[in-house]
Amino acid sequence: MSTKAYFNGEIGNYDEMSIPLSDRSVFYGDAVYDAVLVLNKKPFTLGLHLDRLYRSCELTDIRFTMPREKLVEEIDRLLAVSEGDSLMLYLQVTRGAAPRKHEYPANTEPNLIMFLAPTKLPPKDKRASLLGIEDLRFQYCNIKTTNLMPNVFAAEKATKAGATEAMLHRGARVTEGAHSSILMIKDGTVVMPPLDELVLPGITRKVIHSLCDRHGIPVSLREFSVDELMAADEIILCSTTKNVIYVYEIDGVAVGGKDRALAQRIQALFLDEVYRETGARI
Amino acid sequence: MSTKAYFNGEIGNYDEMSIPLSDRSVFYGDAVYDAVLVLNKKPFTLGLHLDRLYRSCELTDIRFTMPREKLVEEIDRLLAVSEGDSLMLYLQVTRGAAPRKHEYPANTEPNLIMFLAPTKLPPKDKRASLLGIEDLRFQYCNIKTTNLMPNVFAAEKATKAGATEAMLHRGARVTEGAHSSILMIKDGTVVMPPLDELVLPGITRKVIHSLCDRHGIPVSLREFSVDELMAADEIILCSTTKNVIYVYEIDGVAVGGKDRALAQRIQALFLDEVYRETGARI
Repeated sequence: MSTKAYFNGEIGNYDEMSIPLSDRSVFYGDAVYDAVLVLNKKPFTLGLHLDRLYRSCELTDIRFTMPREKLVEEIDRLLAVSEGDSLMLYLQVTRGAAPRKHEYPANTEPNLIMFLAPTKLPPKDKRASLLGIEDLRFQYCNIKTTNLMPNVFAAEKATKAGATEAMLHRGARVTEGAHSSILMIKDGTVVMPPLDELVLPGITRKVIHSLCDRHGIPVSLREFSVDELMAADEIILCSTTKNVIYVYEIDGVAVGGKDRALAQRIQALFLDEVYRETGARI
Repeated sequence: MSTKAYFNGEIGNYDEMSIPLSDRSVFYGDAVYDAVLVLNKKPFTLGLHLDRLYRSCELTDIRFTMPREKLVEEIDRLLAVSEGDSLMLYLQVTRGAAPRKHEYPANTEPNLIMFLAPTKLPPKDKRASLLGIEDLRFQYCNIKTTNLMPNVFAAEKATKAGATEAMLHRGARVTEGAHSSILMIKDGTVVMPPLDELVLPGITRKVIHSLCDRHGIPVSLREFSVDELMAADEIILCSTTKNVIYVYEIDGVAVGGKDRALAQRIQALFLDEVYRETGARI
């Protein structure tokens, strides 16, 4: 069955649907988005993703007035016509269609785009490799906008080089992957980059943080360097469509593998959470 | 008469045309563009704009294979159904439509979007004011992509504050406007920021550079600071839809006005060039 897509209430096949040429996402990337894992037709941590989506609208001054309950109803309508046990729900809110002009248009309403595509989660014993790439992105990385050209470049470069993901760094400082968060374990503590404007507040990362807090695993939010990451006890790559996997190699050099017990505990806690909410065993 | 738009050979009204929902410009801003001034149905410096558009494709690895002669034919088709003596021709090449995935899709062709919208050039005695805004953009500003969210923010902020344009600066260094180049005149020399990855190679700026070379006006390509700009003899704001205008104020402080003869000479040389190529007197 083909991927189903949605535009402002209308549902159709992903590769047959269209949007207005004059939508501001086309000319300016003037849009925010989010992506949710859906297992057994149950969206995982939907509430957290919707929190972030509405927050992205606030941060970009996109006046998306659809009430949350209505949005959930629309998601359910799309879910009802979609098939598959493992899907990614994609949501995008654009500033709307208008004559092209940089300034926000006065008389337009935001447009809502969604689709539900099959997604294949990596097996939990998947090991990831990273390719170091200088982070040349803008300083709005805390907002989930569709200004993703540098992420596209980085993902393409990493994949071409045979790596699982990019490891973006601004000078010495590690920020994140092209579409995932990078965490490290050092001396029994889970270290995450601070949530400033250089890093996306990842939902998977947030769930890990909560689980660590709940289970007495120390978490530290602080900047760390490429050298520190290379010397970490374990490195965790996490995202909505990757869940939680370990990194075994950066730029061809073996890394991590020094605290597998804690890494596995974190992964197990996370997968239990997925099971608890969706009933899916990974 | 309404603005005419074009998508892959099809022509229609701007506000009625659509593009595939799955186009990569929608999800990633994975597209490059250019804008050309059209006076009396004659595009001004079209060759330079097409050079840049094809160069943008190269820099982003968008495999746009339409020969230049064919592209000019398509532009002519759109021009033939458009009305108005003062238009902006907008061209956008996207990486194409595909299932959403960061990496470049294997089996898709670039899509070509165009439109021709009425544009009102400022009168040549228009004076501009600037609002200083920290430049938080990515480090691919030399490529004309649709990743323009920070430019949208800056233009909105400047306009809201009553300024004509933003003056973007990275720390002390002045880069450019939200959608124009900023040049200065100091001691008889026209000073332009170097063409590195922090600045767009503006076509109007390029034409000014050529005209200065041809008429023995010294040009210097070098970085300059906000303080230097504030103390400049004259400040020139230039772009495809602004032509060449002078700046009288930055952040509410009076600037320039100390070498009006040279500033006027540059403007006159530029407007002569516009007249020579299009027959339009501004």
